[in-house]
Amino acid sequence: AEVKKIAIIAGDGIGPEVVKEAEKVLKRAEELFGYSFETSHSLFGGIAIDEKGTPLPEETLEKCKQADAVLLGAVGGPKWDSNPKELRPETGLLGIRKALGLFSNIRPAVIFDCLKDASTLKPEVLEGTDLIVVRELTGGIYFGEKLRREGEHGQEAVDTCVYNVQEVERIVRQAFEIAQKRRKKLASVDKANVLETSRLWRETVNRIAPEYPDVELEHVLVDNCAMQLLRRPSSFDVIVTENMFGDILSDEAAMLTGSIGMLSSASLGEGSFGLYEPVHGSAPDIAGQGVANPIATILSVALMFRLTFGYEAAAQSIETAVKEVLDAGHRTGDIATDKSKALGTTQMGDLIVAAM
Amino acid sequence: AEVKKIAIIAGDGIGPEVVKEAEKVLKRAEELFGYSFETSHSLFGGIAIDEKGTPLPEETLEKCKQADAVLLGAVGGPKWDSNPKELRPETGLLGIRKALGLFSNIRPAVIFDCLKDASTLKPEVLEGTDLIVVRELTGGIYFGEKLRREGEHGQEAVDTCVYNVQEVERIVRQAFEIAQKRRKKLASVDKANVLETSRLWRETVNRIAPEYPDVELEHVLVDNCAMQLLRRPSSFDVIVTENMFGDILSDEAAMLTGSIGMLSSASLGEGSFGLYEPVHGSAPDIAGQGVANPIATILSVALMFRLTFGYEAAAQSIETAVKEVLDAGHRTGDIATDKSKALGTTQMGDLIVAAM
Ligand SMILES: CC(C)[C@H](C(=O)O)[C@@H](O)C(=O)O
Ligand SMILES: CC(C)[C@H](C(=O)O)[C@@H](O)C(=O)O
Repeated sequence: AEVKKIAIIAGDGIGPEVVKEAEKVLKRAEELFGYSFETSHSLFGGIAIDEKGTPLPEETLEKCKQADAVLLGAVGGPKWDSNPKELRPETGLLGIRKALGLFSNIRPAVIFDCLKDASTLKPEVLEGTDLIVVRELTGGIYFGEKLRREGEHGQEAVDTCVYNVQEVERIVRQAFEIAQKRRKKLASVDKANVLETSRLWRETVNRIAPEYPDVELEHVLVDNCAMQLLRRPSSFDVIVTENMFGDILSDEAAMLTGSIGMLSSASLGEGSFGLYEPVHGSAPDIAGQGVANPIATILSVALMFRLTFGYEAAAQSIETAVKEVLDAGHRTGDIATDKSKALGTTQMGDLIVAAM
Repeated sequence: AEVKKIAIIAGDGIGPEVVKEAEKVLKRAEELFGYSFETSHSLFGGIAIDEKGTPLPEETLEKCKQADAVLLGAVGGPKWDSNPKELRPETGLLGIRKALGLFSNIRPAVIFDCLKDASTLKPEVLEGTDLIVVRELTGGIYFGEKLRREGEHGQEAVDTCVYNVQEVERIVRQAFEIAQKRRKKLASVDKANVLETSRLWRETVNRIAPEYPDVELEHVLVDNCAMQLLRRPSSFDVIVTENMFGDILSDEAAMLTGSIGMLSSASLGEGSFGLYEPVHGSAPDIAGQGVANPIATILSVALMFRLTFGYEAAAQSIETAVKEVLDAGHRTGDIATDKSKALGTTQMGDLIVAAM
């Protein structure tokens, strides 16, 4: 089979531990399905700051550009939190998104039946919740001009939020297309009653909506969306929004599920290239103990198989394996009710590989 | 007693109905406590657009400026939603905040014991939740320069988020002071890993924090806060944040309680002047039917008594009356489990007045 190149970036905290299990899944998929993966390993985030003096070394970016897909563990930690901006892990994250043109962040929030008690929401409210937040990832206030200056009332700081029609159009089209393959409902979230960028956003959505007549569109103000996610999570299918709102709402949606250790995400650009990573962070408090939950990272591999490689059968074999292992009652510490029976990272990874 | 001037702005939708009940409460407080209120009524929002051609007529602003406090019902509705910016109710809302210097929005999110089943959160998660969101209200991306221009990639829109040290300092000090009178915990919410305004925000908070050594301070990133509100709502006491984040988080926090028809808010400036309003909107779908829940507006009067007039006993008499009426099982339609027994707006108002 064609060799697929995967750039692996283990990163910080529990990153290396969970990525290791995902690599076993890659290996098992080669055996089972005859695929062939060529992996590279590069430094990124805090560890790259420590070893190379920059969160996103040139070699790492090169490896990513040469690859068909990137698998990322996690980045960041308290160690680098008070560093100046250029020496912070987040700066690497923003840099890699921009450099690779990853304008779209896809964040599925699904409920794992056997884990729904882990949510702080009532089970009857959660029932049937299965939504995707599509977040614009390379524009808006994240990347606009920033400055400090002396003003009339002491120092002042400025951030600029900019969107052009083309940026809005490409992400919104992608969201419409995702909705077409699902329950055909799209909620476009903005603050059009206050922001000019939101007005441009809404006009653009309305202009292209007629091209997707089978998709039911609603406009939801961001404050209202933060409420409706809580009140009627199962009524959402696809949510599309700009970078900053997407940051907030995708995390709120993830927490609704109660299974943040289980959620994966994809960041996509033009074409099939994508960066895949778990939604959870680097969890420095449990790093190096072998107790982290590798499932979100393993499911990120499934997402990579589906979205970048078109390996649908293999994607499903991973997802089914995860489901089987969970249904059999196996749990890592973060999702265990009886902590004394919790499995370690490696044990969980082995069980999933065996179930594939 | 000294005459207190209250500018009443009933506004749109259910505004006039709920404000009418709040006025009965004012009258009853005069009888019971010997206060003396002089009220004026002015047009604002959609109705002002219809009758005066502007959402915030000059006379209305004058009445507010001459008053000691403002009581606002609700503004907006679909009728005006596609109007140009200058002819939209929200523009009036933003205008009145700026013109009256209301830089601080205080949004308590409390659980009414007898209503806690109305929340979509599990009762054990909600237990003990009693938090206040302090939102900066006259700065940030709401009021920064906005523009449209032709760019390289078609039209582009720009919003500017600006904060100066003085704006941050006054709201943060207020939040520290509120926390000192409560459980002495302050969560300052920002996005300091991305935004320059957030870095200025965080520096300012850290600089003044030593003046409030009895308050335990934590910095929370906005995306994390959206999650933590869901995961551990009862652990928050006072949350302080900038305008846009506050818009989103205060609505999320309100929805947590499940009693959005019960929540009141205060918008404060320098000195004791304040504007008081229910958190809920104008609910055009039920307007004019006499079924709206007047409790949030009545509780806004209690907040006005406490924060602007220092009438603590009267504030408590209103709050206790509301509690008694609810404990006796009386409900309006929005909070009734048995809708057939639901009371109308006037009946609910009368019961509360009688219980004062
Ligand atoms: C670390 C931070 C810069 C980043 C973001 O805000 O985009 C993170 O919160 C995320 O959502 O991936
Ligand atoms: C109507 C709108 C402009 C307003 C805001 O965003 O401030 C509202 O959502 C609020 O929170 O009072």
